[in-house]
Amino acid sequence: MEHLLKSVEEILALADSYEQELPPAPPALPIPLAEELASWIDHTLLKPEATAEDIKRLCAEARQYRFATVCVNPVYVSLARSLLEGSGVGVCAVVAFPLGATLPEDKAYETQRVIRNGAMEVDMVMNIGALKGQAYGLVLNDILFVAQEAHEHGAKLKVILETALLSRREKILACLFARAAGADFVKTSTGFGPGGATVEDVALMRRVVGETMGVKASGGIRSWKDARAMIAAGANRLGASAGVTILREAMSNE
Amino acid sequence: MEHLLKSVEEILALADSYEQELPPAPPALPIPLAEELASWIDHTLLKPEATAEDIKRLCAEARQYRFATVCVNPVYVSLARSLLEGSGVGVCAVVAFPLGATLPEDKAYETQRVIRNGAMEVDMVMNIGALKGQAYGLVLNDILFVAQEAHEHGAKLKVILETALLSRREKILACLFARAAGADFVKTSTGFGPGGATVEDVALMRRVVGETMGVKASGGIRSWKDARAMIAAGANRLGASAGVTILREAMSNE
Repeated sequence: MEHLLKSVEEILALADSYEQELPPAPPALPIPLAEELASWIDHTLLKPEATAEDIKRLCAEARQYRFATVCVNPVYVSLARSLLEGSGVGVCAVVAFPLGATLPEDKAYETQRVIRNGAMEVDMVMNIGALKGQAYGLVLNDILFVAQEAHEHGAKLKVILETALLSRREKILACLFARAAGADFVKTSTGFGPGGATVEDVALMRRVVGETMGVKASGGIRSWKDARAMIAAGANRLGASAGVTILREAMSNE
Repeated sequence: MEHLLKSVEEILALADSYEQELPPAPPALPIPLAEELASWIDHTLLKPEATAEDIKRLCAEARQYRFATVCVNPVYVSLARSLLEGSGVGVCAVVAFPLGATLPEDKAYETQRVIRNGAMEVDMVMNIGALKGQAYGLVLNDILFVAQEAHEHGAKLKVILETALLSRREKILACLFARAAGADFVKTSTGFGPGGATVEDVALMRRVVGETMGVKASGGIRSWKDARAMIAAGANRLGASAGVTILREAMSNE
């Protein structure tokens, strides 16, 4: 747990050095076979107009194809949990989504609530304005509060950076803060911002966080080709609403 | 308070009749003079990348021009409140924003928190998926929970419909549910959806809610011409990030 002891000053110094030279890329994971690919994907439906019927369809697909999780808004966590009982498919809930502009204690509360309702993974949006405004203590605390809440209850935490809004330095910093706070994954995008995952961002994030953390690519991943490119760049989880299409393409290509 | 007693069934029957024939439009309010216009505007900054510096600028402008409120994300409510102390400008906070996809009790909790931090007006996003899925009890409860929390603490509640996602019937229903739950305003848009306020939607909303509730037009209002059109259609509050431009245009036109 030495990384938990890093201060904001140490993180800023590390970001300075990473801006000059990144750590080497860890060896890329082997591209999964089609039958394994589903377990890499969070099957995602976050549109505000999604109905309970839409969530039922999402969960039926997740059960059939054995996706890692379904990723849903807080309002549908209980429903998804009950539909996926005994399937081996988890429930992933988004928190402070998609703007990330709530207070640390309120993100922690929302985290507690979604976990109580059945989420095993939590995808929180970091405080983007605090990062841009160099309020680094707040950025770190924000993730720490949620990480503590998630881990206390055995859930995993992904931190969404919304990379399309960040400079290269801000992306590096965000990864370092997420790692220092003990998050399990960094994740590129909400899908509601001005852009989605790019190969360049995924590669950068993987080099910064190293081998031991997860990198989730999300936003605009629509094909098996997209998915392969993200995995080759260093992603070990994909968020997509097109999971079924991606799987079918992967199967027909083998 | 007879409207609070309406059941879902009564509301559905009323929507049926309003779909056939709307109540007559109440007389339009006189277009305000330039010097009064500021008090009709919620001076708005909700971008996730907004920094504390941006909020300081927003509040300084609000103080100078005497806008009705500044409309900010929960993370900036305390700051805005302290910056606007004694100015007569209120703080408006968004809740469950911009997707509206959290549970009624969590929207109520978030409402309690932003009011405690200094918000006097709360703009909540309704449960759009529940409306589309015809889970009308949930739609009504969702607004009721938040209205009760807001009113207990002397705050006003606006219900954001995200009209660009709704059919005409859904817009009528949303207005009727908001009125039945005791909300103070209906509001067109988050500014993050697929479209903003339209003259047609504002006119429809005004006819459905009648004279005694507020109608806030928001999303894409960038000029004095836009503002006038919304007011002529029945809006009595405008949400805009271009408030200063709108005011200057109004002043130079008089």
